[in-house]
Amino acid sequence: MPEAPELDNLRVVLVATRNPLNIGAAARAMSNFGFTRLRVVNAYDVAFREARSAVGAAALLAEAEEYKSVAEAVADCTLVVGTTAVGHRELQHPLRRLEYGARLIRRRMASSPVALLFGSEKFGLSNDDMSHCHWLMRIPTRPGHPSMNLGQAVALCLYELVRDPKAAVHRPEKIKPAEAGEVERLTTMLLEALRASGYVNPRTEGSTEEKVRRLVRRLNIPARDMEVWFGILRQILWKLRSAPG
Amino acid sequence: MPEAPELDNLRVVLVATRNPLNIGAAARAMSNFGFTRLRVVNAYDVAFREARSAVGAAALLAEAEEYKSVAEAVADCTLVVGTTAVGHRELQHPLRRLEYGARLIRRRMASSPVALLFGSEKFGLSNDDMSHCHWLMRIPTRPGHPSMNLGQAVALCLYELVRDPKAAVHRPEKIKPAEAGEVERLTTMLLEALRASGYVNPRTEGSTEEKVRRLVRRLNIPARDMEVWFGILRQILWKLRSAPG
Repeated sequence: MPEAPELDNLRVVLVATRNPLNIGAAARAMSNFGFTRLRVVNAYDVAFREARSAVGAAALLAEAEEYKSVAEAVADCTLVVGTTAVGHRELQHPLRRLEYGARLIRRRMASSPVALLFGSEKFGLSNDDMSHCHWLMRIPTRPGHPSMNLGQAVALCLYELVRDPKAAVHRPEKIKPAEAGEVERLTTMLLEALRASGYVNPRTEGSTEEKVRRLVRRLNIPARDMEVWFGILRQILWKLRSAPG
Repeated sequence: MPEAPELDNLRVVLVATRNPLNIGAAARAMSNFGFTRLRVVNAYDVAFREARSAVGAAALLAEAEEYKSVAEAVADCTLVVGTTAVGHRELQHPLRRLEYGARLIRRRMASSPVALLFGSEKFGLSNDDMSHCHWLMRIPTRPGHPSMNLGQAVALCLYELVRDPKAAVHRPEKIKPAEAGEVERLTTMLLEALRASGYVNPRTEGSTEEKVRRLVRRLNIPARDMEVWFGILRQILWKLRSAPG
């Protein structure tokens, strides 16, 4: 993931957060995904900067900016987006799913600051908080249990903002399959072991050989594993042949 | 989000988790996204079922299955995937980014059970745990700070599994813009107010009218807001006209 300068255009704004551990968890997720600007409005616990949950993000938390009102916390932003679990009140705002809302936010972040607001653990954003927002965004949770943990909700929104749709299409690595000649050599060794162990019935030897050949091909053995398999069969063959007839 | 039956095919397997709050947070995220089957292997705190962080997911946590080994916890699965923050050791497994890995998991979940493993907060999955996995998956965190909070990592993986790519393309709702006739009526009222307040210079009245007409059109006022704006201007006009000349 690139540590892109446009990520600095996002302000994560936590409003009236009750549990300082959630502020720390938000800071940690921000650091995980390359965001830097945390703003805190009227946190319940004034000592939130000591939150131990900000593992690896102590500096980010120390630099968090404190505000007395949402209006001040979003003043420099050209787009203000509130998050909500909805269902519990009639919304007066356009409501967008995270997948789509994040696209709009990302587009705006390319040119100017955007505020993303998260309300308190118990009540979410108030109607007054929401009135500062251009629109609202919701995480696609199931209707029966929409309310998420605050730290998890922050992490999800940030992930969607840095998520790379192209990465879902490309396969990052290919396992190189073994070549047919090597596979046939292994098949021969396996058949030898089967004969030596008495598995092969001489009357049906021809069909057994074909069955085993297909069996080995269905394994799709990776090229890099062939030497280990040769070693295993070599050892077994040696032991079988040295066993008393 | 549909409460799809294939979601029951995912087993979220928490291995050697130290903090019971993280087990509770995982349970909550599972419930948020419609997953049901939690498995716990050698949890550090045997009293994890009381974790208060499982808000709204107490039943799911109560039904969590306990295992003594990874082998037993994944025995019924046809695909076993481990999660890792990588970087700290040489991996012997194919490693896939969440965006791509989740696609593969989702495909398999349509037909048979899949295990998704999360290691301990401090050390992640051990090499022994990983040897039970078909491949590993990583969340695209930044290289400078890859290690996530466990509850957040679980939430991200589950979100990616239920995420709807189509929802990123479609605009869920359209704000209906006002019709031109209404916008012109509003422009006329605003111009009346500007004349009554002395804003309009009679010598430049023509160009002012055009400027204001363009100004109002750039607002893109939604159809549903027009009545409120008419009311506001009507009231201002009334007051302006009743003011002593």
